[in-house]
Amino acid sequence: MIKIAYLGPEGTFSEQAARCFTRTMDAEGTSLSPLASIEDVFEAVETGAAAYGVLPIENSIEGGVNATIDALIFDSDLFISKQLTLPIVQNLMISERNAGRKITNIISHPQALAQCRKFINREYPDAVIEAAASTAEAARTAARRSENGEAVAAIGPKNSADVYGLKIIQENVQDNKNNTTQFVLLTKDDTSAPKKGCNTSVVFSTRDEPGELYRVLGIFAIWNLNMTRILSRPTKNRQGEYVFFIEISECADATDVSDALTMIKRKTIFFKNLGSYQIVNV
Amino acid sequence: MIKIAYLGPEGTFSEQAARCFTRTMDAEGTSLSPLASIEDVFEAVETGAAAYGVLPIENSIEGGVNATIDALIFDSDLFISKQLTLPIVQNLMISERNAGRKITNIISHPQALAQCRKFINREYPDAVIEAAASTAEAARTAARRSENGEAVAAIGPKNSADVYGLKIIQENVQDNKNNTTQFVLLTKDDTSAPKKGCNTSVVFSTRDEPGELYRVLGIFAIWNLNMTRILSRPTKNRQGEYVFFIEISECADATDVSDALTMIKRKTIFFKNLGSYQIVNV
Repeated sequence: MIKIAYLGPEGTFSEQAARCFTRTMDAEGTSLSPLASIEDVFEAVETGAAAYGVLPIENSIEGGVNATIDALIFDSDLFISKQLTLPIVQNLMISERNAGRKITNIISHPQALAQCRKFINREYPDAVIEAAASTAEAARTAARRSENGEAVAAIGPKNSADVYGLKIIQENVQDNKNNTTQFVLLTKDDTSAPKKGCNTSVVFSTRDEPGELYRVLGIFAIWNLNMTRILSRPTKNRQGEYVFFIEISECADATDVSDALTMIKRKTIFFKNLGSYQIVNV
Repeated sequence: MIKIAYLGPEGTFSEQAARCFTRTMDAEGTSLSPLASIEDVFEAVETGAAAYGVLPIENSIEGGVNATIDALIFDSDLFISKQLTLPIVQNLMISERNAGRKITNIISHPQALAQCRKFINREYPDAVIEAAASTAEAARTAARRSENGEAVAAIGPKNSADVYGLKIIQENVQDNKNNTTQFVLLTKDDTSAPKKGCNTSVVFSTRDEPGELYRVLGIFAIWNLNMTRILSRPTKNRQGEYVFFIEISECADATDVSDALTMIKRKTIFFKNLGSYQIVNV
């Protein structure tokens, strides 16, 4: 039995991603366990409590998921073993007993609320907006408070409506329909050797001098490597100092990537290879 | 009377920043008004309801403040007119009537909670953690719920303890002591002409081809311009496409900056100058 930890509770997009990853595994069976935080998922894989962890890494609207990215950069020695992209569809959901009532409160994760801001302002300008720790937590809270007679709606994935017995009254309510999130499957196994048909992720920081980032990106340019992710994160030492997170497209030649990374490692003051991994189609 | 809008409610770090900015103004007097969201602050300045807006733009630990940055990139025509950096000191605060009681709940903005995660796990491993829309909102909620007999503590700036009548029981509880946030003063006035002793911010995106970002950074390198901020944000069209937000240090020669920007504008598919502005010392 392969144990897979994901960012819970049940009903999150991470669970959906975890189910997609499990379909790609030769299974003597897999078991999924929802954990409370991104840090908990890292810890479960690091201690061996789980063989794999599933976490969001970047959303097409909101950008990088800082807790995942910072843990990969600063705190963990895990590698990326697979990656996939899910369409993010948010829905407005209520308890059956609230059918037809005027919605007084809308609850969701702040990121989901941000994604549906225009929808909410247009259709529910008077609703009180409340933050929850996750979209699934929002659905759970809406279900519980509806029992107490409150007309609370949640915003979240279809999955969480199912899990918490809510009914979707409006589908696809996010403002931008090009909304996707990339999820990674994390493992302790070293996946750092560049492989054919695989994306490769590295993080590095340069000396704080004019032109240093330019010179390092020159190495990517020499080998004609296309970058499919470019994020910067603060080093947390001093404002204006960054660690860069760069993903190289699967189209690159594995030997080219390998040679380029050797050089980038030499020309940076901090360097970490996060692995070469296949993109799973969903 | 100069009207200045800031991200409220009262007691936020934004209010502290707004007070610092007002000290630099020739005053026939200033009046500060707290608004509910970053979007509201943009709107107030755009409609002329306020002459200036004060918003956080980047934290040294958490990185860019996406709502501010995305509005500057995609939605608004405002310019940066001044910038300053505040030390971020978080404190644990309770209502007087809870003195000596065991704290059962800790409430704060998710970013502040993230900044104090190790502290909370170490000192209050059993407390229920709750999210609020701002640190000031957290203080207000803790004060209100303490009235109802709950042992709720808030985490936030000293300011918000004062405003909501709470008592600080532990100072400086954030995990990383190098915690600073940069705030900008926004205005409708065009500040885009590079000026001596001023930082300059631009945003741009390049064609999605290998080496394009490298060639644009080459322009900064030719003029030896030091970058004090490098952020990437999704274009929101397609995963892997970015807009870059770059700030050039005040040390650069104004004519050099002007020449470099002319060239960057020509070599990018999207370009916007967000202004040249003084750094205010606090």
